[in-house]
Amino acid sequence: MISVDEALQIVLSQSQKLPPITVPLKDALGKILAEDIHAPDPLPPYPASVKDGYAVVASDGPGEYPVITESRAGNDGFGVTVTSGTVAYVTTGGNSLFSLGPIPDGADAVVQVEDTELLENAAAEPKRVRILKQINPGVDIRPVGFDITKGDLVLKSGEHLDAAEIGLLATVGVMMVKVYPAPTIAVLSTGDELVEPTVACLTRGQIRDSNRAMVIAAASQQQCKVIDLGIACDDKAKIDSALESAVSAGADLIITSGGVSMGDRDYVKPLLQKRGKIYFDKVRMKPGKPLTFAEMVHGPTDDMRSNKVLAFGLPGNPVSALVCFNLFVIPAIRRLSGWANPQLPRVHARLKQSIKTDPIRPEFHRAIISWELDNANGSPGFAADSTGTQMSSRLMSMKSANALLELPASGKLMPVGTFVSAIVISDILGVSSSQSSQSMEIKG
Amino acid sequence: MISVDEALQIVLSQSQKLPPITVPLKDALGKILAEDIHAPDPLPPYPASVKDGYAVVASDGPGEYPVITESRAGNDGFGVTVTSGTVAYVTTGGNSLFSLGPIPDGADAVVQVEDTELLENAAAEPKRVRILKQINPGVDIRPVGFDITKGDLVLKSGEHLDAAEIGLLATVGVMMVKVYPAPTIAVLSTGDELVEPTVACLTRGQIRDSNRAMVIAAASQQQCKVIDLGIACDDKAKIDSALESAVSAGADLIITSGGVSMGDRDYVKPLLQKRGKIYFDKVRMKPGKPLTFAEMVHGPTDDMRSNKVLAFGLPGNPVSALVCFNLFVIPAIRRLSGWANPQLPRVHARLKQSIKTDPIRPEFHRAIISWELDNANGSPGFAADSTGTQMSSRLMSMKSANALLELPASGKLMPVGTFVSAIVISDILGVSSSQSSQSMEIKG
Ligand SMILES: [Mg+2]
Ligand SMILES: [Mg+2]
Repeated sequence: MISVDEALQIVLSQSQKLPPITVPLKDALGKILAEDIHAPDPLPPYPASVKDGYAVVASDGPGEYPVITESRAGNDGFGVTVTSGTVAYVTTGGNSLFSLGPIPDGADAVVQVEDTELLENAAAEPKRVRILKQINPGVDIRPVGFDITKGDLVLKSGEHLDAAEIGLLATVGVMMVKVYPAPTIAVLSTGDELVEPTVACLTRGQIRDSNRAMVIAAASQQQCKVIDLGIACDDKAKIDSALESAVSAGADLIITSGGVSMGDRDYVKPLLQKRGKIYFDKVRMKPGKPLTFAEMVHGPTDDMRSNKVLAFGLPGNPVSALVCFNLFVIPAIRRLSGWANPQLPRVHARLKQSIKTDPIRPEFHRAIISWELDNANGSPGFAADSTGTQMSSRLMSMKSANALLELPASGKLMPVGTFVSAIVISDILGVSSSQSSQSMEIKG
Repeated sequence: MISVDEALQIVLSQSQKLPPITVPLKDALGKILAEDIHAPDPLPPYPASVKDGYAVVASDGPGEYPVITESRAGNDGFGVTVTSGTVAYVTTGGNSLFSLGPIPDGADAVVQVEDTELLENAAAEPKRVRILKQINPGVDIRPVGFDITKGDLVLKSGEHLDAAEIGLLATVGVMMVKVYPAPTIAVLSTGDELVEPTVACLTRGQIRDSNRAMVIAAASQQQCKVIDLGIACDDKAKIDSALESAVSAGADLIITSGGVSMGDRDYVKPLLQKRGKIYFDKVRMKPGKPLTFAEMVHGPTDDMRSNKVLAFGLPGNPVSALVCFNLFVIPAIRRLSGWANPQLPRVHARLKQSIKTDPIRPEFHRAIISWELDNANGSPGFAADSTGTQMSSRLMSMKSANALLELPASGKLMPVGTFVSAIVISDILGVSSSQSSQSMEIKG
């Protein structure tokens, strides 16, 4: 039986980035960029004002001047030239990467409104303004290309496209983006006992299929397209035909659950074996031991796609299935989606309850981690609350869990206060804002 | 000018949960549950086997027995009764919340396969098995309702529906779920200088609109439906007509950017004022000072909707806009969506660079926080890397940032190693798995 680390290395070595696709900007959110992006123009594209105020010839100095034009963002004041003895009103303009109004030709500095007085007799044109302060050339002007030179590398291939990066792409006019697609995932549940969750009254021996809805939800959170293969009963031909549908529908990854335990009617593994290769079928971990990872090989396709479909046979019980999904399937999905670091983040957290560890298998213990200002040692840190009974059938133990504590297989009792590694599987909980502001002066 | 905390309190006090809606299970992912969910049936629904093995009458003890039937998950072995002197093969079954095969009537314990020997002469029917171990009644049987009693509260109103919760809902047969909807958000950019990002060649004085794509992306990440109102130039009638479209399209929230600075053609604020009420128009913070929060009131609607539309006038520059979005708009969206704790999580992180703070306004400094095994003090913790130049026009400073450091307005230099409060705005970075396993024995 291989270790979790060994299993993960095998999964990652078999998971290759999918071929990039080009999508409209709005569909690029959350994806990994598959090209370098250079700025097509300098930013700011024109000398721009940092302040609302008056564009001046700096050497003119304090005094009264006629306001020869208004140069606001967008209303082209460019035809006008500020010559010695005149000034022009400028504003910081608006809504853009470089929210700056243009500076008319001839001006070499900006005096902010606060350092000026507009003279009375407002009916007169041109208006007149008193400049109160001597400033140096260049003050409050951002020259062309100050922030980005034309041709600069704005975003590198491999970067994760979050809201800020989408804004940057819009700024440089990139509306079609080359990204790695998220994989298409086919999801199948197997088991004679399973019925659709829509069945209101169970007859004896029936159980509603929860894994499929859960796995589809978890895959959607990773942006995957999902093919729902439904439930196959424990019948070799039915399961094989479901696998065939996944392949012919173009799935990159198939996830089954059930049918991989010791029971004598578990057909998933031999069928995967027949269609390709089993990499492993057991991992030393608790819960989740009977996890199968395989690939199915099929004939050459007419497009660019690989002729390999990865397959996970998740354990039937839903807690094991979800733990395996977080530990192995998410890294596989993220690697296919182009992530350089596909694993979920790991932090450390202090146990708030003592936990007896398993003597043979490392345990992935469901817990809620939250940030505490004083983590029982005078310093802030994560504290971990166990979600209670960890029997692998109890999906209730996954409810609200945002971390899996990695407990070593020592067979010992880990006392309250022990720091353990924690895999973050959902949003962490922080301190509230009022607590937080009290803590600003904490020293390391 | 009010503080960030005061502003946030105002925003939250004006943001009320939207009326709940009932959606199919697949659309409930990520939402907040708006009803209590009780189990319609006990779980397991029948006495179930914890192990693959033989259902026995425990008092029979070790010896040779005929295997009278097979009772696998789903193939109804229930008609058969195990009587003293017989046993029945059982498996743990498959894929469900309680992945357990049924126990036939009459049996009161399970002897696992490992404690039995199937006798040779396999052609004979019934098969015979040797039970090697004496066990007590109840061993490896999970009785009806062991995990959940019929009627138990499975999920409480207010819980966040993640993949595990979706699985639980499927298990108890809930296919239509009452949840709080995410708000519908209308997004408008204002400014004469703005052109669509599709414009390849800028003429003098033009800038591509980046804020709209960015705000739409950020709102999508919060599951909002988005109404794209496009760009309005600095024209009172055009902006007012955009506000009117937002109201009549049923937006719960409108987000404008630009047009709230000191420039004399900023029409957004007076128009919001005319249509309702301005709560505040400046917040003591850096970047992002000219932030407007308002509400527009309109006539009674024919449905259940409120006749109030909340409005944020974000600063024109994109970094200020995105910082304000994280600090104020996300909590508003989450409160409308039913979250009890709508703020982004706050942790603490050690500065890896010294930072000079502003003497007047608290700064929200863009940084990348990552978990370090030894955070320069022998203990694990978050370290914060500044993203560099923090000029509010530089969207580059938001790139890759996963945290906003909350720096107090002391005007002092915060030295390397200072611990500061950090608002987590994107995925945190953890240590890698190999580092992590070395650290399992860290003590508090
Ligand atoms: Mg403007
Ligand atoms: Mg099965």
